[in-house]
Amino acid sequence: MTVSVELRHDLEDAANRMRISAIEMTCASKSGHPTSSTSAAEVMSTLFFHEMKYDVSNPKSASADRFVLSKGHACPILYAAWEEAGLLSKEQVMSLRKVNSDVEGHPTPRLNFIDVATGSLGQGLSCAAGMAYVGKYIDKASYRVFCLLGDGETAEGSVWEAAAFSSYYKLDNLVAIVDVNRLGQSQETALGHKVEVYQARFAAFGFNAIVVDGHDVDALVNAYETARNTKDKPTAIIAKTLKGKGIDGIADQDNWHGKPVPADKIAAIKARFNGSQKGKLVPKKPIEDAPKVDLHVGSIKMADPAYKLGDKVATRAAYGTALAKLGDVNPRIIGLDGDTKNSTFSEKLLQKHPHQFIECFIAEQNLVGVAVGAQCRDRTIPFTSTFAAFFTRATDQIRMAAVSFANLKCVGSHVGVSIGEDGPSQMALEDLAIFRAIPGSTVFYPSDGVAAERATELAANTKGIVFIRTGRPALPVLYKNEEPFAIGKAKVLKQSANDKIVLIGAGVTLYECLKAAEQLEKNGVHACVIDPFTIKPLDQETILQHAKRVGGRILTVEDHYPAGGIGEAVSSAVADHPDVRVRSICVQSVPRSGTPDELLDLFGISARHIVEAVTKY
Amino acid sequence: MTVSVELRHDLEDAANRMRISAIEMTCASKSGHPTSSTSAAEVMSTLFFHEMKYDVSNPKSASADRFVLSKGHACPILYAAWEEAGLLSKEQVMSLRKVNSDVEGHPTPRLNFIDVATGSLGQGLSCAAGMAYVGKYIDKASYRVFCLLGDGETAEGSVWEAAAFSSYYKLDNLVAIVDVNRLGQSQETALGHKVEVYQARFAAFGFNAIVVDGHDVDALVNAYETARNTKDKPTAIIAKTLKGKGIDGIADQDNWHGKPVPADKIAAIKARFNGSQKGKLVPKKPIEDAPKVDLHVGSIKMADPAYKLGDKVATRAAYGTALAKLGDVNPRIIGLDGDTKNSTFSEKLLQKHPHQFIECFIAEQNLVGVAVGAQCRDRTIPFTSTFAAFFTRATDQIRMAAVSFANLKCVGSHVGVSIGEDGPSQMALEDLAIFRAIPGSTVFYPSDGVAAERATELAANTKGIVFIRTGRPALPVLYKNEEPFAIGKAKVLKQSANDKIVLIGAGVTLYECLKAAEQLEKNGVHACVIDPFTIKPLDQETILQHAKRVGGRILTVEDHYPAGGIGEAVSSAVADHPDVRVRSICVQSVPRSGTPDELLDLFGISARHIVEAVTKY
Repeated sequence: MTVSVELRHDLEDAANRMRISAIEMTCASKSGHPTSSTSAAEVMSTLFFHEMKYDVSNPKSASADRFVLSKGHACPILYAAWEEAGLLSKEQVMSLRKVNSDVEGHPTPRLNFIDVATGSLGQGLSCAAGMAYVGKYIDKASYRVFCLLGDGETAEGSVWEAAAFSSYYKLDNLVAIVDVNRLGQSQETALGHKVEVYQARFAAFGFNAIVVDGHDVDALVNAYETARNTKDKPTAIIAKTLKGKGIDGIADQDNWHGKPVPADKIAAIKARFNGSQKGKLVPKKPIEDAPKVDLHVGSIKMADPAYKLGDKVATRAAYGTALAKLGDVNPRIIGLDGDTKNSTFSEKLLQKHPHQFIECFIAEQNLVGVAVGAQCRDRTIPFTSTFAAFFTRATDQIRMAAVSFANLKCVGSHVGVSIGEDGPSQMALEDLAIFRAIPGSTVFYPSDGVAAERATELAANTKGIVFIRTGRPALPVLYKNEEPFAIGKAKVLKQSANDKIVLIGAGVTLYECLKAAEQLEKNGVHACVIDPFTIKPLDQETILQHAKRVGGRILTVEDHYPAGGIGEAVSSAVADHPDVRVRSICVQSVPRSGTPDELLDLFGISARHIVEAVTKY
Repeated sequence: MTVSVELRHDLEDAANRMRISAIEMTCASKSGHPTSSTSAAEVMSTLFFHEMKYDVSNPKSASADRFVLSKGHACPILYAAWEEAGLLSKEQVMSLRKVNSDVEGHPTPRLNFIDVATGSLGQGLSCAAGMAYVGKYIDKASYRVFCLLGDGETAEGSVWEAAAFSSYYKLDNLVAIVDVNRLGQSQETALGHKVEVYQARFAAFGFNAIVVDGHDVDALVNAYETARNTKDKPTAIIAKTLKGKGIDGIADQDNWHGKPVPADKIAAIKARFNGSQKGKLVPKKPIEDAPKVDLHVGSIKMADPAYKLGDKVATRAAYGTALAKLGDVNPRIIGLDGDTKNSTFSEKLLQKHPHQFIECFIAEQNLVGVAVGAQCRDRTIPFTSTFAAFFTRATDQIRMAAVSFANLKCVGSHVGVSIGEDGPSQMALEDLAIFRAIPGSTVFYPSDGVAAERATELAANTKGIVFIRTGRPALPVLYKNEEPFAIGKAKVLKQSANDKIVLIGAGVTLYECLKAAEQLEKNGVHACVIDPFTIKPLDQETILQHAKRVGGRILTVEDHYPAGGIGEAVSSAVADHPDVRVRSICVQSVPRSGTPDELLDLFGISARHIVEAVTKY
């Protein structure tokens, strides 16, 4: 299309007003990223005031187009855009980075126009792809998703995971815009202004890739139109820009990353105004075609199948069973996996509800990022699964999911040395430490099939980041089908008036504790055995009650490294109680291949070692 | 070149012998990945017996070509290659996956021909790139590096981080081979047999990308020759193969991932032998041109610059100072950063010793992977640095570095809420949990400039994975230049006979502890203040000694989330001592922007909160 002179002037003026605002707010905060902001001023003005459909009075409208600022440090230009749109006041944007303001140094969903927190680079496109997937295949609505990336952050592999995913699923409702302003934080980026290389990379990853002058509003408007008309593939707009564009003497210069610029630069920008006023450009309204969604889950039928006490069931298999049942209860329960669905048993959901399952291939960062995108605006409840060891690949995405206050479920299978022959690369032994460290998280460690199904049900009903640790081996069912489970409530599996110690185990080590308790009983030593069910929150009350009853001795046993696991969780929970002692046995060094039983014994967490530790206590 | 009929037959027979061995060993172990192995049989026979230069009697020779099996689950074909070469006996390969054998389910450096552990997919190319970088620019030797990837694992973004790095640094001594066997674990890969897409992606990322029939030994020999003759860019050989190739009825079929195949399939492979014998093909010897390397470091000059007590120095700045001095002491000390060198201060090494610094751009997974590659065969001691929060991006690489028994130094800056205005996305608050969980790791948390320099020096002298937690704010120097520091030795900064409590803080919270102790003293409450220096190992002895002296009360204060941090480290260290209690204050929820002082107070870890907690104890 041809842009009229008037429209061009309006869009240019809007860009320059946003530019000035970004400079003013970072001058006020004495920190922040004005130069990374001004390179994107025209990208943002054309997007917000010509292309995107949204409702200024209801930024989180389910039907509105989504915008993800993957280059989160450039948030002054985002705040300026919402100021230009009339949502934020001058006072609000000028409170940038102040402790009592939600206009933070990097975007968080404390602001109602932000869906996902950004600031750890390279993550936005995965979240945007998750939103676009939901829009196209689950909501089946017309809203589109725009994601602005920095050029430096395309060095992050997660960007290419997201790109591969987006083209595989033909996300033609997704537009990535790369602000190629040439300069990184500490030097020129690897590709500088070689826009043709960015174009070739995005094209090779299945995008319709367009190069434009990122300061030319005509070119930008036309590129967005091309994107809108491109079917069956996502579009990448490679915008060649200058860092600090519009700021005299600073544009395209080194050493201006993350620094306010002198306020006297503003006058020169004002001098370039064409005379159009704030408020003249009115954003397009969304088409209200996104369905209403009810994320209520409630309970699942437990007795289908009914477990019999002693039946051998792996907790990973019970998870799959429960996930498929959750899929029956609510069509907005979705499963995502990283080509391990036949091992994590998430394939049970795929088999029953194929439209509620997203294969994400071997790309765990994107797996988590897509899920974070999919849960935005309460559109779905995503359950992600892979080997627990491979969630470590997405630790930063999970960390950022917490900053996004996301409703994300992570289910990690194949934990600990009890996986056996595959060896240490496949064994999760630090997953409890990582997931316990996530603020507000809930960490389940179900020990049998019944507990695993209930953990899955509780996870769906618990807002926030939830981790469920499942195991590979099939182990006997311990609980009746009707056994009630609750977050933060441990189960006491064995107790007597003569108990001399509390044994705490979970998963495979709970069975070792039970075996050890049986052997100890033969020697006249009675042990209380506790299954914590959730490691976070931990049932401090039950643990303390029994510990005090038995003379203050606790022994924890876990298929995990020492730091951040059950031993430390219990130690810190009872640390303020001087009459309670804790000893812990766990995996202390890098494991190796072997049978599960051999490894439990070799790495010191078998019944034999428990008996020995109790005897020496 | 044209391959003679005889050579072709020899290479084909070697491939088929290796194929049979891979089947036999996985039949014996009743688990493992024969089909993922046989797809690569010709790739491996041509590589090991025509292209690569190495010494069978000394696989770790500094001058030998390197081979990295990024698709680690295909290790049976690697073991078979070393059997064919004469290093491993039949008995050894048949011990696959047994607990008393180093022939593990996925490769680890417990075997002398393996440099890096693999099995978490997508990591091998970064390690290979690190080796190639060292070969080309530091060793300046003729050895080359070959990396075999699976097709499925190219979905991992880390592969593209490594690819971008390799072309940026013109690593023409690096060859990536992609075994495009079409099938993943649970279904067809995203790209199936679209070899032209793999080619386009590697070409866009700067590789000379060649497509070949991966079962045609002529084509493979020629592709390796092309790679050898390609200058200034790495080569990617896209090998179109069949999973399970050579196994009747199983090749290219679904549902054979990770499963032994019937042993009766072997006869048909034997029937295809051309008649050449094992041992006929002799690998080429390496050119002995890699220099001898001495990694001895020793001490650095502390008094240059001399700190004065009370001078304000950020620990991150002192780290940079010490790193540059280490660079003086040993030219094999190298620094690697992810475009944050002006914030982590690793740029001080770059400025002084530009050839000892590798800019890795914004790609933390590759940053760590390259460092792991660079430390192989004791060629260098790599110090990696970025914001501590962004090391979470490489958690899986760090986890695997432990399985590789790597000598890796990670230095993370900008920890905790004390970074201030940038907000939660930039704040490391789970880094202690992650690095403490790494088996065998050492975790330094220096609190002033002197301690930070000594931590850096100790890190260089300590083999294994070391983390140094550095802070953003400049804080007063606490220690004299000549103060001795040791791993596992805490410093008691304040003590008196009247002490009623032990306060333990580190970094910014140590200063808050000192402030609080001063205030408390005015109220007549004396506190002992301890700086742990290393969080792992923790100086249990000093802590217990003082805790018992003051009546058993410990209060820990940390700029970190509760799980896996100082509080839990101390709680578990004293858990077996019933007369010692621990209370902990730390950051409990997702932080926000604000000034450092405002945030320390808002998130409950300022002197005021310490005074309150002591008063209530």
